[in-house]
Amino acid sequence: MSIPGPRYDTPFNIARLSHATLYVRDLDASRRFYVDMLGLLVTHETADAIHLRAIEERNHHSLVLVRSDRSAVGHLGYKVHAEADLDRLESFLSGEGLTTSWADVPFQERTLRSVDPQGIPIEFYHRMERLPSMLQRYGDHRGGKLQRIDHFNCFTNDLQGSVEFYHRMGFRTTEYTVRDGTDVLLSAWLQRRGSVHDLAFALGVGPRLHHLAFWVANPLSIIDLLDLMATTGYQANIERGPGRHGISNAFFLYIRDPDGHRVEIYNADYSAIDHDHEPLCWQFGDPLRSCLWGPAAPRSWVEEGSPFIGQEPSAPLVFADHTGSVAA
Amino acid sequence: MSIPGPRYDTPFNIARLSHATLYVRDLDASRRFYVDMLGLLVTHETADAIHLRAIEERNHHSLVLVRSDRSAVGHLGYKVHAEADLDRLESFLSGEGLTTSWADVPFQERTLRSVDPQGIPIEFYHRMERLPSMLQRYGDHRGGKLQRIDHFNCFTNDLQGSVEFYHRMGFRTTEYTVRDGTDVLLSAWLQRRGSVHDLAFALGVGPRLHHLAFWVANPLSIIDLLDLMATTGYQANIERGPGRHGISNAFFLYIRDPDGHRVEIYNADYSAIDHDHEPLCWQFGDPLRSCLWGPAAPRSWVEEGSPFIGQEPSAPLVFADHTGSVAA
Amino acid sequence: MSIPGPRYDTPFNIARLSHATLYVRDLDASRRFYVDMLGLLVTHETADAIHLRAIEERNHHSLVLVRSDRSAVGHLGYKVHAEADLDRLESFLSGEGLTTSWADVPFQERTLRSVDPQGIPIEFYHRMERLPSMLQRYGDHRGGKLQRIDHFNCFTNDLQGSVEFYHRMGFRTTEYTVRDGTDVLLSAWLQRRGSVHDLAFALGVGPRLHHLAFWVANPLSIIDLLDLMATTGYQANIERGPGRHGISNAFFLYIRDPDGHRVEIYNADYSAIDHDHEPLCWQFGDPLRSCLWGPAAPRSWVEEGSPFIGQEPSAPLVFADHTGSVAA
Amino acid sequence: MSIPGPRYDTPFNIARLSHATLYVRDLDASRRFYVDMLGLLVTHETADAIHLRAIEERNHHSLVLVRSDRSAVGHLGYKVHAEADLDRLESFLSGEGLTTSWADVPFQERTLRSVDPQGIPIEFYHRMERLPSMLQRYGDHRGGKLQRIDHFNCFTNDLQGSVEFYHRMGFRTTEYTVRDGTDVLLSAWLQRRGSVHDLAFALGVGPRLHHLAFWVANPLSIIDLLDLMATTGYQANIERGPGRHGISNAFFLYIRDPDGHRVEIYNADYSAIDHDHEPLCWQFGDPLRSCLWGPAAPRSWVEEGSPFIGQEPSAPLVFADHTGSVAA
Repeated sequence: MSIPGPRYDTPFNIARLSHATLYVRDLDASRRFYVDMLGLLVTHETADAIHLRAIEERNHHSLVLVRSDRSAVGHLGYKVHAEADLDRLESFLSGEGLTTSWADVPFQERTLRSVDPQGIPIEFYHRMERLPSMLQRYGDHRGGKLQRIDHFNCFTNDLQGSVEFYHRMGFRTTEYTVRDGTDVLLSAWLQRRGSVHDLAFALGVGPRLHHLAFWVANPLSIIDLLDLMATTGYQANIERGPGRHGISNAFFLYIRDPDGHRVEIYNADYSAIDHDHEPLCWQFGDPLRSCLWGPAAPRSWVEEGSPFIGQEPSAPLVFADHTGSVAA
Repeated sequence: MSIPGPRYDTPFNIARLSHATLYVRDLDASRRFYVDMLGLLVTHETADAIHLRAIEERNHHSLVLVRSDRSAVGHLGYKVHAEADLDRLESFLSGEGLTTSWADVPFQERTLRSVDPQGIPIEFYHRMERLPSMLQRYGDHRGGKLQRIDHFNCFTNDLQGSVEFYHRMGFRTTEYTVRDGTDVLLSAWLQRRGSVHDLAFALGVGPRLHHLAFWVANPLSIIDLLDLMATTGYQANIERGPGRHGISNAFFLYIRDPDGHRVEIYNADYSAIDHDHEPLCWQFGDPLRSCLWGPAAPRSWVEEGSPFIGQEPSAPLVFADHTGSVAA
Repeated sequence: MSIPGPRYDTPFNIARLSHATLYVRDLDASRRFYVDMLGLLVTHETADAIHLRAIEERNHHSLVLVRSDRSAVGHLGYKVHAEADLDRLESFLSGEGLTTSWADVPFQERTLRSVDPQGIPIEFYHRMERLPSMLQRYGDHRGGKLQRIDHFNCFTNDLQGSVEFYHRMGFRTTEYTVRDGTDVLLSAWLQRRGSVHDLAFALGVGPRLHHLAFWVANPLSIIDLLDLMATTGYQANIERGPGRHGISNAFFLYIRDPDGHRVEIYNADYSAIDHDHEPLCWQFGDPLRSCLWGPAAPRSWVEEGSPFIGQEPSAPLVFADHTGSVAA
Repeated sequence: MSIPGPRYDTPFNIARLSHATLYVRDLDASRRFYVDMLGLLVTHETADAIHLRAIEERNHHSLVLVRSDRSAVGHLGYKVHAEADLDRLESFLSGEGLTTSWADVPFQERTLRSVDPQGIPIEFYHRMERLPSMLQRYGDHRGGKLQRIDHFNCFTNDLQGSVEFYHRMGFRTTEYTVRDGTDVLLSAWLQRRGSVHDLAFALGVGPRLHHLAFWVANPLSIIDLLDLMATTGYQANIERGPGRHGISNAFFLYIRDPDGHRVEIYNADYSAIDHDHEPLCWQFGDPLRSCLWGPAAPRSWVEEGSPFIGQEPSAPLVFADHTGSVAA
């Protein structure tokens, strides 16, 4: 395989990842996890759904929790720069042979929905309700002090296909992993907004969400969160970390919400805005790759993920032996 | 006045601020300041010039020190996304009535030079020599651990003109200050790459550089740097800080190099990538504006700046009383 | 003058500073300041008094707020190692010509009270009610996350007398300041428990309390507290800092409570337990002494302090010119 | 068993733990580890031995590396308050049936040596050569920025005997572990200087040193050290951490030196100076005990330790099943 180069001639402009919807079985328990413990701010709440945003975000929501009888993930949301981008995106997606539809999503203006070629539900919008930033309302910061949504990380059973599709959408790969000594792609990090990634993929049983990530302001916020989790009944929700990934240089912590949805608390990557930022290639067996230091990935972290609603995950076709089918 | 809205239809794409040149009278003293103390990395060195980059940067240089008999600032450099952007920029600048020229700049490919309407020398390039990132070469990090260039901040004697020109170039204002209860613009923060600013302006004797800023990974890097400066002969070079700006939420420190050029060490702003990010308006007299907390600006910080080479600064025409002619 | 050497043959053993009482005019306002904002924990509360402790403290109180019609400071409290120390202390204090009395203090066992030779009310006890530490109850940590009381700092109008008295009590001087080029003592730091100080003195209008200090776990707690104060109505209560003292190496912040009582938030000194720790002498004019870096002391910080109840402060006899009569 | 109470009537006064000697097979490799990487400062150096101290220490050495053909640990050193304490200690140790001798140790005044009842070589001194603190020589701080020695942690095959002996020497237990639901002591933390411990013991194959610990100023120093180790050839020397112990609340990192001697990098415990500080009892099976959060102890950490020179370790007599014979 090869990593496709960046494309700057897309007729539309995807600004960044924006939000996700999680289907949860116990909305109260999820509220305690995301609001009381992690410190996300409630922007709207009904008996069946809670809209949340992080501290610095002016957009109405970056996470939506929806009461459900099964745990799953809804659409991954992206923001485009201008309204006209939506129509151009619709043409592009139709041209890719994908179904599209226009959805009426609360707090969002015109919203375009589709499902990517590997089965991930996606939606695009141009504008959602805006609220004043809470960044300098320090008295309202709580718990994990999550500051903004950072990225999605998904299992795909057709990694080459996923990467190529998002490159055609204008994403650029910043780092990727290959099976040692080969060009077999095992994972890839792709960005739109100039950070290391808006979206990452790992080859595995897919489509599933491996995790969504929120950025925090410094490593001590993660230490503080660990102390809080360990002593307020969430010790068992700590899955992996803290540690430093070689890939992306992230100072990371992975936790599981009451439904098992995985959240990464993330700090310390770098700016990757340059058009001539060469993708960094890692060998899967490089001991610095997944873990510059910190705990090795437990089996749960390697194997488990959340299904997307209405999508049945399946194993990759290209190699059956499963070696190296990890997310990071 | 009013803050012009964002423009997305520029026929060229400026990616980000990139580098600056400082003319210095004692190259050895400057080397000790920027390399030994601040931790910038030397990428090229002759008897007359030193090229430097910060820890995560893959571009060859973000700061160039040039031996000179007077202290001054050379061109402020910007990176464009594609080579074709350079030609389109040349057309644009000519259309603005500005002189342009193509320069042969070491380590940079084709470089377009001009002087902005308020007298700031600027240059644009598409690609410069690339080097491996030193971000994970932790054993080579020194002193201030400067991680990447963050922004330029300039005095201009025609603030409205400066803001309008850069908006025509595709910049967007994220925050600005007005004289209390009026719409008289006193300072403005403009961005291209999705952070709070690539470039800021304050009304004052201009054109002059108020400071250039480097981003560091967390507030403790700034505390460490202060300890280092105070005990290695640079106590007098600490001008203002540490503190927190209301504007931009920056955790800041301002220091002066051996020539008096001002450098900000910067952390903790926010992402401002959204097209519908409304500019935040501050009243000049708001006690949270310049200083959420931390030391008030000394007179030197309010008044002093570095001239651009070949440009004679002059006072603003629009108001003679000077009140509020501050950088931040 | 000279700094008396340590005394190890005192027949009693003062363990450490322990607590203070502050008389306040608006108990509700003080509660908001110390509990809601600084994060001290309420251990007992009536209409007229609030007992507080810090996060790691197992003693019932380190700060007592008492409703009063004037702002003042009550007894500074010290803990002794064994009950028998109290009787030996009574003999010692009587031998010094000081009045002593046994007080019935809520939550404390037998309590010995006196007034030191320079007029500071002091009390000694052996045991007070004990409570489980809250150090690992991270979910109950709030605001400033004050972890333990660290020291008292007082103005005295007879510094030599103060230092000699406390040395006779077994305290040892760790650092001190002299008027430049002389042996005129201007301030002194004295310890019992192995840190830099339990108690410090500055020559000035005394007796008055300059400040009491609480230790926090790291510099970022101070940064977080500043952000909180600046945006929750306490910006004007920030008096000085953050900064680094040369003396003691403290990373410091000084704030004023609603009555003007000064509190230092303190981190980063060193262990001074060794019997042969030579006192460190600073010249008053040393630019690194009070402020390795950070804001210079404002006039209020140099001059203002809280009177002790029933004690009329007066100016030092020994020199009238006032130069250098500062606390640190 | 029961934890003996504190003793204040010892006729001698042990101030604190002070230093240790490590026998190493490759002195150059050890120098790189302790000096270049961890940042200890060389105070004396010959072809066969290196004396080291940490940043804030004024004593000549807290660690001595001695070239040897086998890896081992020499005497654990303690400082007493006054010279007369040494003679009283000699009487005490003889009364305990232990051999004593007076050693001529470079840079130390009169030094008393013995071997504790469980076979740990110990030495006591009153004064060693003093040097100016390097705490404010920030330009000379390197790598791990180790600030002061904090404690020793040893395996003993007779834990009850060890604890009782050190209590007779005036140590006090601050925390301890028992086999769940029993009073079988598995580990204990003992202190002299008011912190959580100068010395800890775990039941196991002993006597052996489990680790010696150095204190650092804040958690980010540990994060920085991990980044440094992982990228300068010491990734395999990281054994466990970072994490938070329930016991002591330490933010910890355990690393192995080139000989396998274990060093803990330690931050964030609490003050335990009070005579009435009740020892805290942990059940071995409490999930918060060893690891509030962070990686579980690997087998090497549970089982491996360094022998003391001339002492043959052996298994505990009291229980053969080995369950719970861990250090922390």
